[in-house]
Amino acid sequence: MTAGVLIFDQAEELDLVGPWEMLTMWKQVAGGPECLIVAEKVGPVTCAKGLTLLPHASFDDCPTLDLLVVPGGRGTRREVHNPAILDFIRQRAEGCQLALSVCTGAFLLQAAGLLDGKRATTHWESLDRLRALPGVEVLEERFTVDGKIWTSAGVSAGIDMTLAAIAHLAGDEVAGKVQLHAEYFPSDARYGGESVAAYLPRYARQGD
Amino acid sequence: MTAGVLIFDQAEELDLVGPWEMLTMWKQVAGGPECLIVAEKVGPVTCAKGLTLLPHASFDDCPTLDLLVVPGGRGTRREVHNPAILDFIRQRAEGCQLALSVCTGAFLLQAAGLLDGKRATTHWESLDRLRALPGVEVLEERFTVDGKIWTSAGVSAGIDMTLAAIAHLAGDEVAGKVQLHAEYFPSDARYGGESVAAYLPRYARQGD
Repeated sequence: MTAGVLIFDQAEELDLVGPWEMLTMWKQVAGGPECLIVAEKVGPVTCAKGLTLLPHASFDDCPTLDLLVVPGGRGTRREVHNPAILDFIRQRAEGCQLALSVCTGAFLLQAAGLLDGKRATTHWESLDRLRALPGVEVLEERFTVDGKIWTSAGVSAGIDMTLAAIAHLAGDEVAGKVQLHAEYFPSDARYGGESVAAYLPRYARQGD
Repeated sequence: MTAGVLIFDQAEELDLVGPWEMLTMWKQVAGGPECLIVAEKVGPVTCAKGLTLLPHASFDDCPTLDLLVVPGGRGTRREVHNPAILDFIRQRAEGCQLALSVCTGAFLLQAAGLLDGKRATTHWESLDRLRALPGVEVLEERFTVDGKIWTSAGVSAGIDMTLAAIAHLAGDEVAGKVQLHAEYFPSDARYGGESVAAYLPRYARQGD
């Protein structure tokens, strides 16, 4: 199996490195897929917060993918108009077992035509923008599953979605091994009280 | 303020990108520090799972740091014998408000002499190895705070520690803003059941 994690200028760092860590840990501890960072072209790509990565493959030399991860970030607002990335996503998703978006990566799936008649989610701040687009039913969940299209809420939510996808593909014990080795037993600490409460998406509201 | 996130060959990806995301989000949403990835030398550095990054600064051209983040990963086993990185950590931690390690980054703090008489933690798999070293009191917590030395458990735990450090430095409302924009409201899903239970560090045991 091969997993490709997409990158483009101003992709959000944790959107892609969260799933990357879970997928590569799966490879290390339980024979998971080969994992590649894939960009339109070879050469350095700078993420939304200034981290610069070197992709492993370009769209032209990328091998067949079984899993595709599409991150979000500020750069999606430009990339939804880039036929090269939309063609890549559409064509590669076709052959994949699962195609996953994180955060505003959902807008790239939508622009590629992959959310027609699907349930999906995105970063809380962009839920209304996604609702305004045709063909997609927007849910306020940590992540959504609709056939082979999985979408997550913002930034850190890609970690939760990827672990669930590993459980789906390889079983609960393998996902447990990945969770243990990434020591993903996150704190439930909440900061900001009332100043945050009004913005919370449905899944994050306590006692809702 | 300036925050430096250290990198070296075979540093663990999420160890550094988790804190990076929280610190750079702090900069974006609430005037947090300038953030830099710092390596011994300029040029590409490949992490433990194959992600290649380009650091922003070398030890020689790194500006004064107010925060230092030291990731873990396989590469720490080599770097604990590298005087250049230990000198850098020791000297820069001196001038910092906080020096934070993630995962087995604690072994770099220890080798630099920064854990003498301190409480600290590390990845669950390396707790006994840290206990065997002199001068440090090892706790099985998600993260530890001892004066200006903060240490976290494995890989993903750096996110929780960094958010708590932001709350400590800038207050609960600022940490709330960072948490909200990174949408860090993680799932409490647990995978693997009994096959995982025996390995859990104390803080991750349910009903303990």
